Amino acid sequence: MSVTAPLGFRAAGVTAGLKQRGARDIALVVNDGPSRAAAGVFTRNRVQAAPVLWSRQVLTGGRVRAVVLNSGGANACTGPAGFQDTHATAEKVAELLGDSAGEVAVCSTGLIGERLPMDLLLPGVEAAAGQLSRDGGLAAADAIRTTDTVTKISFRRGEGYMVGGMAKGAGMLAPGMATMLCVITTDADVPAAELDRVLRAAVSVTFDRLDTDGCMSTNDTVLLLASGASGVTPAPGELERKVTEVCADLARQLLVDAEGATKAIAIEVVGSASEADAVEVGRAVARSNLLKCAIHGEDPNWGRVLSAVGTTGAAFEPDRVNVAINGIWICRGGAAGDDRAKVDLRPRDVTITIDLSAGPHSATVHTTDLTAEYVHENSAYST
Amino acid sequence: MSVTAPLGFRAAGVTAGLKQRGARDIALVVNDGPSRAAAGVFTRNRVQAAPVLWSRQVLTGGRVRAVVLNSGGANACTGPAGFQDTHATAEKVAELLGDSAGEVAVCSTGLIGERLPMDLLLPGVEAAAGQLSRDGGLAAADAIRTTDTVTKISFRRGEGYMVGGMAKGAGMLAPGMATMLCVITTDADVPAAELDRVLRAAVSVTFDRLDTDGCMSTNDTVLLLASGASGVTPAPGELERKVTEVCADLARQLLVDAEGATKAIAIEVVGSASEADAVEVGRAVARSNLLKCAIHGEDPNWGRVLSAVGTTGAAFEPDRVNVAINGIWICRGGAAGDDRAKVDLRPRDVTITIDLSAGPHSATVHTTDLTAEYVHENSAYST
Repeated sequence: MSVTAPLGFRAAGVTAGLKQRGARDIALVVNDGPSRAAAGVFTRNRVQAAPVLWSRQVLTGGRVRAVVLNSGGANACTGPAGFQDTHATAEKVAELLGDSAGEVAVCSTGLIGERLPMDLLLPGVEAAAGQLSRDGGLAAADAIRTTDTVTKISFRRGEGYMVGGMAKGAGMLAPGMATMLCVITTDADVPAAELDRVLRAAVSVTFDRLDTDGCMSTNDTVLLLASGASGVTPAPGELERKVTEVCADLARQLLVDAEGATKAIAIEVVGSASEADAVEVGRAVARSNLLKCAIHGEDPNWGRVLSAVGTTGAAFEPDRVNVAINGIWICRGGAAGDDRAKVDLRPRDVTITIDLSAGPHSATVHTTDLTAEYVHENSAYST
Repeated sequence: MSVTAPLGFRAAGVTAGLKQRGARDIALVVNDGPSRAAAGVFTRNRVQAAPVLWSRQVLTGGRVRAVVLNSGGANACTGPAGFQDTHATAEKVAELLGDSAGEVAVCSTGLIGERLPMDLLLPGVEAAAGQLSRDGGLAAADAIRTTDTVTKISFRRGEGYMVGGMAKGAGMLAPGMATMLCVITTDADVPAAELDRVLRAAVSVTFDRLDTDGCMSTNDTVLLLASGASGVTPAPGELERKVTEVCADLARQLLVDAEGATKAIAIEVVGSASEADAVEVGRAVARSNLLKCAIHGEDPNWGRVLSAVGTTGAAFEPDRVNVAINGIWICRGGAAGDDRAKVDLRPRDVTITIDLSAGPHSATVHTTDLTAEYVHENSAYST
């Protein structure tokens, strides 16, 4: 269903030859309206790819007619020439649609530092425009894959409207690695300012709480486009709930497909003095290579949890922290608790619960284990 | 030579049975004076092991008669009972030396969260006291090893005085993993306040600039003891230079022995607006798992350098950053520079130079590559 589940959207995914293996590498998503309201959230990395610089500018207008995405090259660290390539790509889409380039967002993913082969890309964009259809959502989702082993799509049905989405990323957010791209569509009729609020709220509790390798990409982009084709304006909070569900579903798919991962680890921080404290603690634990190795080895090494908690500025007293792994409270009051032999770490899903005993707040951060396969995949990526 | 190279020190290393493999596991270093001036630097982790809590208190007095160190258990996250174990260990040393426990520092390293077997440890301390000698420095250095594959010792000769040292840690500082312990001795005659200044200055440019896995230990301790036995008080700056050399030498040994590492990576940040900016950038790059995997795969992936630089708050403009790997400027002005095929990444030593073009300052941070062996070693450590 993907981005074409809601009314008013067409999409396509084609092979332009940017990737060596002959797979699809250009996706196009077009909003046929009647509305073009849109919002975007971008990487916080200060080194931003040309398409991010371009699309941020487009989104300031709050209107998007089309999004063109390519895999096979990130167009990051490519200087003014790379920015011109992004501009030319948007102009090409605008020309094909008879519209304005100022309302065409561009996303790219792949290796950093290499120019895109425009002689292949522009004909690919033309081919994609020729194949736009109401059934094109799956092909578009397929075309944005890099090291992703599966396409990632989601949709939710609201009261008289739909929300659909596609994403790529296999390894991720801080916001993260190898680039995470996501396009979400809805046929609800909602102004751009409200879309912006909804998208930021949804991303802050989904993609922003996924941290598989602590690496932040130059290209991360999440877009939300509304066609208004259903004529329905959801009740306040209703659209946010649906968009959050789609984001959470896609985030889960990214997590499960993270490079080399064999475990999906949920780090639940409870009893914190604030939600920000809980997120800080969850993220510190999610970034501990030592802990991620231990979980890979099915070793309930709670000492590595505590030593990561201790690197944060969160409010807590070391001798009041409790830690459970898969429900067994193996650390109580900052020291050994229940028998660690009772912890069953064989399932793929692992939950680490950290009770800071410092307040009523909580948050969950998701990560993966660190494996030899991750090392292998990322040692061999560009060569 | 180790910690007994300077006059006034005796040491021993014995087997108490704390480790399973029958290796030495208790070290004792005694300062016979005439001075007992001392200084210490400890982990910044908020979760601190019992011996760190104890030794910090001892060092506030600026005097240390002896340091007792054990491998085979970190005595971290062991609650009040663990603190009593540390206290009892110091009391035992004091009793054996006919001295005050308030001037006995304690260091522990090994697994977090388990009580030390005091029935084995205290007889080991007694045995160590019985074997104290002017030749004991090497045995002491051997006794503090955990996953270290070699003993780490160093010494430098000053004008009429000596500086010696031993360290353990195989993976490291943020300050870091698996615990880094270091004892430095000198027979120079220097008051405690000056030792404190010297040690902080030396650590800040050596151990603090080593970051192999971003993980900060609960037990890291660096001690500097002065016996005054040479009767020499070095000229200002002279002792700092020698202590810094010993720290740098030991830091290098830690780096080369880091768990699973096949590359020693120096991240030289130049052209920064401040030294702090240079350290922040160096550390961010040192913590990029993606970059560390790329270097392991001998892939000069400068895009991963730039994306790590972009996560910092340092002053720089993305389009003015230059990056060289092993002397080849493959990124100029934030975009592709010289041919990446010219970069030879086969040597063990790798230098990544990052020119921020933002000022006259610089700093170098040292790290290692990320390998499947690191994952293996840390998946299997406690089980």
